[in-house]
Amino acid sequence: MKLIRFGETGKEKPGVQLEDGTRLDVSAFGQDYDEHFFGNQGISKLQDWLASHQDKCPKIEGTIRLGPPSWRPSKLVCVGLNYAKHAAESGMEIPKEPVLFFKATSAIVGPNDDLIIPKGSQKTDWEVELGVVIGKKASYVSKDEAMDHVAGYVLHNDYSEREFQLERHGQWVKGKSCDTFAPIGPFIATKDEIDDPHNLNLWLTLNGETMQDSNTSDFVFDIPEQISYISQFMTLMPGDIISTGTPFGVGLGLDPQRYLKPGDVVELGIQGLGRSKQTARAYQGK
Amino acid sequence: MKLIRFGETGKEKPGVQLEDGTRLDVSAFGQDYDEHFFGNQGISKLQDWLASHQDKCPKIEGTIRLGPPSWRPSKLVCVGLNYAKHAAESGMEIPKEPVLFFKATSAIVGPNDDLIIPKGSQKTDWEVELGVVIGKKASYVSKDEAMDHVAGYVLHNDYSEREFQLERHGQWVKGKSCDTFAPIGPFIATKDEIDDPHNLNLWLTLNGETMQDSNTSDFVFDIPEQISYISQFMTLMPGDIISTGTPFGVGLGLDPQRYLKPGDVVELGIQGLGRSKQTARAYQGK
Repeated sequence: MKLIRFGETGKEKPGVQLEDGTRLDVSAFGQDYDEHFFGNQGISKLQDWLASHQDKCPKIEGTIRLGPPSWRPSKLVCVGLNYAKHAAESGMEIPKEPVLFFKATSAIVGPNDDLIIPKGSQKTDWEVELGVVIGKKASYVSKDEAMDHVAGYVLHNDYSEREFQLERHGQWVKGKSCDTFAPIGPFIATKDEIDDPHNLNLWLTLNGETMQDSNTSDFVFDIPEQISYISQFMTLMPGDIISTGTPFGVGLGLDPQRYLKPGDVVELGIQGLGRSKQTARAYQGK
Repeated sequence: MKLIRFGETGKEKPGVQLEDGTRLDVSAFGQDYDEHFFGNQGISKLQDWLASHQDKCPKIEGTIRLGPPSWRPSKLVCVGLNYAKHAAESGMEIPKEPVLFFKATSAIVGPNDDLIIPKGSQKTDWEVELGVVIGKKASYVSKDEAMDHVAGYVLHNDYSEREFQLERHGQWVKGKSCDTFAPIGPFIATKDEIDDPHNLNLWLTLNGETMQDSNTSDFVFDIPEQISYISQFMTLMPGDIISTGTPFGVGLGLDPQRYLKPGDVVELGIQGLGRSKQTARAYQGK
């Protein structure tokens, strides 16, 4: 099943996307895709409900905005430097154990919303990543048990302001949490949709030019290792998203370095998880 | 007004604590203390409601557990090294601009709940801190405007596992996010209750021995500077908590270093914000 949310920012409704691309409004099911949904067999309940209600679900117009396909996870945990070639381009060593950092959940937006370049930013960069959506509370979980805690997968662009992240005194969170820095979607594919999450092509283009083109088979730490590792330090809640790291090809690693400017168009995708597109624009507030 | 939440973990109800210490159940007001409450004049609405309903509110028994006084903020942002003497004891320089990090909100517990020493931990440490509760969305806020975005204040113990934080490959979040590492409360004091948040004594004892004893007048960056600064990098949401840093006297800074073991009792308090008490115990799960 492919879970979507659609409509105006902050007023999104839950929907599903069918095999043929048709999108259905499932508001009548009565639950948004949040911690409660993922933690209480929401996916299988929705599947059962659809079996008898699908025909009555209104179709969604193709022009309607897609929102992030889940509502406000308790956390968005990222694994840094999880592709060897990306660690090298960042001038860092391949880590001996996963590097973890958080993004503020206030950074989450829909898959095709504009990227707002923050005030004062000179170094806004892209990072295509596979997101893993947690389906069951995970605390001190072994690698063998880890995949039982996965609800599904989602496409994520882990936008990063490199000056804020690396040159503004400690802790990457500063360069990872700006508004619009976490476009998620178009949809969450439930686990059964993805045969092998460790063999998915992922790519990103800037104004049509390929910048990132890799495969999740290049992970330093695979998904069970990531879930098990994180769960030794904190409890993963249903709906939480783990972003599994980005491959080679970010702006920071280019010579000369290359960063986003207003008008730039970033497109990205992962095999089986659809594609998204963000247009960069300058911050226009006060 | 002093906001409390009480009852079993995960099933807490909202309440208030009166001047004379009496605690009242305000469930009948119909709103928990969450993002919606803080972002929609919940405090003044509750005050108005109490004016005509206080007599009918049930009293809460003194023996009932206090929960964290707000429900799941979108983020718990911490300011590191914000007291000069603490930066020195940590072997770090006074930062030129605030150091920021996040704690997982899954770490939040009630003020007197047990501290669970994580599996494998040798270096669990204490940090008494003043928490600032955000009352209004804050994005690119100036120092002059910053205090308009404050709803109130709360006592926080920013427990930290120093090996996880500093010796496990990058990013402090790993040592800050374990379950029970963020006891919050006993109550949120609304802003009007605290005359000068920059002149509050704060203290912490370990088994009755004073470890931390300082005053928020020793901040490197004051509260308006912190709010304004953070809001340049991310949007602070109503209900979000900023933990403003800890003073001198943590276990990491002692010679020899001193860390918590099962049975240890940590008590802490801030002038006007009450006190809390945690008993350390070993992780007993699988």
